[in-house]
Amino acid sequence: MYTGQVFVTLKKAVLDPQGDTVKRSLHTMGYPEVKDVRVGKYIEVKLDGATRQEAEERLDEMCRKLLANPVIEEFHIEIVEDDQ
Amino acid sequence: MYTGQVFVTLKKAVLDPQGDTVKRSLHTMGYPEVKDVRVGKYIEVKLDGATRQEAEERLDEMCRKLLANPVIEEFHIEIVEDDQ
Repeated sequence: MYTGQVFVTLKKAVLDPQGDTVKRSLHTMGYPEVKDVRVGKYIEVKLDGATRQEAEERLDEMCRKLLANPVIEEFHIEIVEDDQ
Repeated sequence: MYTGQVFVTLKKAVLDPQGDTVKRSLHTMGYPEVKDVRVGKYIEVKLDGATRQEAEERLDEMCRKLLANPVIEEFHIEIVEDDQ
């Protein structure tokens, strides 16, 4: 069994209104040192796979098809082998 | 300048209907090897700070006050020093 950690972030060129709102809130709450906030997704997928490489390839496919929107987002995958 | 990477996840005991929906979709799409999906947030915060420790302490405070809901979520922070 493997755990895939998927990090989905907006591309640099894409505006992030949610992040801007969080930044403004933090300023109001007394954290003027905050210069920028970007909000993305962190998805943990537990999956079976014959090999680590197979699990990674399948997960990459899932990201391109469902978990991330390749037009505006980029993603990064890390695979961890679970202890049995 | 530091970049704080914040990972916010639902506590183990909390149900994740969004994750369950993603899991069912992946099964329908031909990925029966997926056993569990949990959806969380990944937040990048760029902030000034005199020291790495100060930046980390301030960011931890922001998480407890705004970025995470300590009743149902847990969070994990990593601080990276940006190249100048």
